[in-house]
Amino acid sequence: MEKQFQGAAGRPRILIVGGVAGGASCAARARRMSEEAEIIMFERGPFVSFANCGLPYHVGNVIPDEADLLVATPEHFRARFNIDVRVQNEVRLIDRDSKEVEVKDLNTGNVYRESYDALVLSPGATPIRPPLPGIDIPGIFTLRTIPDSRAIRQWIDGPQVKRAIVVGGGFVGLEMVENLARRGISVEIVEMLPQVMAVLDPEMAVPIEDHLTAKGVTLHLGDAVAGFEPDVDGNAITVRTKSGQGYTCDMVILAIGVRPEVTLAREAGLEIGELGGIRVDDRMRTSDGSIWAVGDVVEVRDVITGQWTLLALAGPANRQGRIAADVIMGRDSVSRGVQGTAVCRVLDLTVAATGASERVLQRNGINGNPAQYEKAYLHTTDHVDYFPGAREMTIKLLFSTPDGKVLGAQAVGGDGVAKRIDVLSMAIQKGATVFDLEESELCYAPQFGTAKDPVNIAGMIAANALRGDAPPVHWEDIDRAYSMILDVRTPGEFETGHVEGAVNMPVDTLRGRMEELPRDREIMPYCTVGHRSYFATRILRLNGFSVRNIIGGKMSHDIYQRLCQR
Amino acid sequence: MEKQFQGAAGRPRILIVGGVAGGASCAARARRMSEEAEIIMFERGPFVSFANCGLPYHVGNVIPDEADLLVATPEHFRARFNIDVRVQNEVRLIDRDSKEVEVKDLNTGNVYRESYDALVLSPGATPIRPPLPGIDIPGIFTLRTIPDSRAIRQWIDGPQVKRAIVVGGGFVGLEMVENLARRGISVEIVEMLPQVMAVLDPEMAVPIEDHLTAKGVTLHLGDAVAGFEPDVDGNAITVRTKSGQGYTCDMVILAIGVRPEVTLAREAGLEIGELGGIRVDDRMRTSDGSIWAVGDVVEVRDVITGQWTLLALAGPANRQGRIAADVIMGRDSVSRGVQGTAVCRVLDLTVAATGASERVLQRNGINGNPAQYEKAYLHTTDHVDYFPGAREMTIKLLFSTPDGKVLGAQAVGGDGVAKRIDVLSMAIQKGATVFDLEESELCYAPQFGTAKDPVNIAGMIAANALRGDAPPVHWEDIDRAYSMILDVRTPGEFETGHVEGAVNMPVDTLRGRMEELPRDREIMPYCTVGHRSYFATRILRLNGFSVRNIIGGKMSHDIYQRLCQR
Repeated sequence: MEKQFQGAAGRPRILIVGGVAGGASCAARARRMSEEAEIIMFERGPFVSFANCGLPYHVGNVIPDEADLLVATPEHFRARFNIDVRVQNEVRLIDRDSKEVEVKDLNTGNVYRESYDALVLSPGATPIRPPLPGIDIPGIFTLRTIPDSRAIRQWIDGPQVKRAIVVGGGFVGLEMVENLARRGISVEIVEMLPQVMAVLDPEMAVPIEDHLTAKGVTLHLGDAVAGFEPDVDGNAITVRTKSGQGYTCDMVILAIGVRPEVTLAREAGLEIGELGGIRVDDRMRTSDGSIWAVGDVVEVRDVITGQWTLLALAGPANRQGRIAADVIMGRDSVSRGVQGTAVCRVLDLTVAATGASERVLQRNGINGNPAQYEKAYLHTTDHVDYFPGAREMTIKLLFSTPDGKVLGAQAVGGDGVAKRIDVLSMAIQKGATVFDLEESELCYAPQFGTAKDPVNIAGMIAANALRGDAPPVHWEDIDRAYSMILDVRTPGEFETGHVEGAVNMPVDTLRGRMEELPRDREIMPYCTVGHRSYFATRILRLNGFSVRNIIGGKMSHDIYQRLCQR
Repeated sequence: MEKQFQGAAGRPRILIVGGVAGGASCAARARRMSEEAEIIMFERGPFVSFANCGLPYHVGNVIPDEADLLVATPEHFRARFNIDVRVQNEVRLIDRDSKEVEVKDLNTGNVYRESYDALVLSPGATPIRPPLPGIDIPGIFTLRTIPDSRAIRQWIDGPQVKRAIVVGGGFVGLEMVENLARRGISVEIVEMLPQVMAVLDPEMAVPIEDHLTAKGVTLHLGDAVAGFEPDVDGNAITVRTKSGQGYTCDMVILAIGVRPEVTLAREAGLEIGELGGIRVDDRMRTSDGSIWAVGDVVEVRDVITGQWTLLALAGPANRQGRIAADVIMGRDSVSRGVQGTAVCRVLDLTVAATGASERVLQRNGINGNPAQYEKAYLHTTDHVDYFPGAREMTIKLLFSTPDGKVLGAQAVGGDGVAKRIDVLSMAIQKGATVFDLEESELCYAPQFGTAKDPVNIAGMIAANALRGDAPPVHWEDIDRAYSMILDVRTPGEFETGHVEGAVNMPVDTLRGRMEELPRDREIMPYCTVGHRSYFATRILRLNGFSVRNIIGGKMSHDIYQRLCQR
């Protein structure tokens, strides 16, 4: 018979605050570790274990039936896991001395106490709803819970909802853009930052912004909301921004992020981190040895930077819940920290990332040291272009110098984006280098990829840089006074548009035109994506020229120029 | 100025035999390493660097234009890489003493010699065409080259091609089934082995066989072709099998594998391995220090078993070509061996694998030792089932015991199969364990996966087995005399079909029915896929019963039973 955890009082009593991803996982895992434990799960809302990732698609009628979002009911937890689930019961106070919580039954108003041997906090995070003028006007919504989606759906089903403004261009914001559009509503985005999808670096957000614009979504970037004004005539709302603009619509979705629900923890005197989440150790234990915390409410360690971060994602929450249950039950499970792997579909475009962005590397360094890194861009297609249906994909790969360890990756494109980011996520998890990526043996058939997969090619670009075969240069780092920009595309391509000041010399003609090239300046070749310019770099370097390959070619140039013009 | 390789005679002379994947990659890489080298690439056929992976789809008119398959022309190699490409020039003899090859120009009949400092053999492999009676009847084809696809297309465009027999149910065979079906031709498969897709274990081939049957493809498994008979009246061909059957059709595709083209190497006295491929070291060097070999013609090391193997895939061929070029040019690149990652689409079903199959582990062991391994099956969907379009997916994961190192994986399903196999390929490459898979942080949004990705869940099933939380048992290993088969599904599910002799006790009722369960026998719970039975295993083990969880549940049972009936 397996040894079971014995609580301080014989039969251990585990209380869990919050019944969605982290809390529900913790409860189920705790039961799998002990048949003896008494497990009570409190949930303030009416539902446990619902699929909040599906809420935008419920609004968009992709998932028409709300019941489909209920992954597990309280009855299910009772029957299968012998867990006492109390929905609409709010834990209002933690008495650490007596090891008790005070609970209010929101149905009856009754207030009662329960004692614990172990307490797990998984209250999640709350959508930020800033105290701006007019914030309480009807028609301004956040989306986090089933009651939220009900309210939004009800509003949409009402009369005259033709125009929506989504405030915030992150994951939830963009998923809402897609789903509001699906409901026939024209959408504008107001975003405080100069880009959408802030987990990406700005240049990687440009293709998303272009895609949104092409699909008829109006973007107002770099402008924060100052307040909301009701329309005198009817239901319309005008969103006022700090720059003085006013945009009128029939509904507003606030998707400007979430804030960890730390009230309970703070009032109990638990340590709160600088980012506003509960501080836990790698066993998910708070500053009180009898209290654990998991999910969106905690600060977690970024495996790349080594710094604390906030990450509101279901996968990590589930893992943390299981770790807390293990540790409570006496098994020494440890959190490995987070990589922030995430994916989002935006109107038929897929966006995904894992590990650190360049912004994060610059701000937070690597394990406490300034980040020594380089980057590669790959503009390619998700499968061979001779097979129908190939779609453009751009990958940005960040890696440490000089050792080439993979630090992060971002990708935007059609199908196949999530695949490459998942492979790179595993690469980061296992400490792979760009030299490993070069050698990876990935699935290839014409409809699935390329014989050299984009992951291989990204690794090759990076490895060519690190080995010195093709030292890289980026558009923003070029000092034109000391370099010659060489367009190695065909004359026809050159004529349809080229970089200012560039000299055209097609790669296939270089060997016969060496005498035209300078030996007193650095030559910087570019092509459309960086492939032909790599060949040019090799030809010229082997012929004694000083050369750096411009990474990402004209496609990266055009994006760079767009960012400069902002 | 970069240091360049200097050949024995000052300017090195590199001859390459074969101009498709391995040879073409080697030639281009050699040029990128040296502007000085003289590089000559001989190709017996009329084309270099064509996409032979696309040929089945050209037959199927998915890629209607043959020119799309020509990745690079001889002119391209000349202009860009300064490589002397000689198509329809066949290297017929290697004179190792004088370091010369004898070449026949197939256009002129002219025979000439060229000397080399380094010789690279990349002649590929030839489709096996056994000397059976009737093998030369018109209408019997193999598919490996553009002339092959031309001949097949021409035959199909002729009159009366309504029925085809594909001999061989491997990658090329099944891709041809799909593409012949696309041309309106009804297809039967004759396969010598008792299963299709022999890189998979038999139970993983069953869903493919079911899918083929459901799509109207007739399978004749476990029966080898004995010969072919022409029809007296017209163009029909009867395929005779060893079992005495005769299947009549209008065309035959022979897809029974390929054989390394070692004639040249053998006649030159180079070492040939036991599997019939050229033996090379990890620098792709043959038994002659001036001769390298790459691609489908060589035997390669399997990274899992440590044994030699043959692998006719484009990705490894390209990598080997680059390694040979590096080594010739004085850079110490090393082949890491192969994992055999491969993917195939069969009539809307995706099949992929990486690493060793169970059959290979049993036959070849792990690095020279008998394989100590365990396996996990996961029957799931590619994304959460509440989001539209979820499709079934089955994953088999093989891992070493007791350390949990990932040894191999196979998957069959819809979209998302290649993604999981690619992640597992990277996991194998980096020596990941099933405990790493549990903790992997992979992309999740409802249309892309599940909060616990199938890769995570496969890792959990395996880790639960290794940690002893849920000791596994497989249907084929159950001794019913000493165990109780417990169906923990609902009575309704039980009634629609259950395993013979199983007792029904729904998982949610177990806690109240402990006294009905035996303490003198092992209890083996199953459900549909193995998830509820895992919960049952935990409940019963914690209550002191001896329990093993039946992996893969009733879905694996039904497949197992089908295999037993053969």
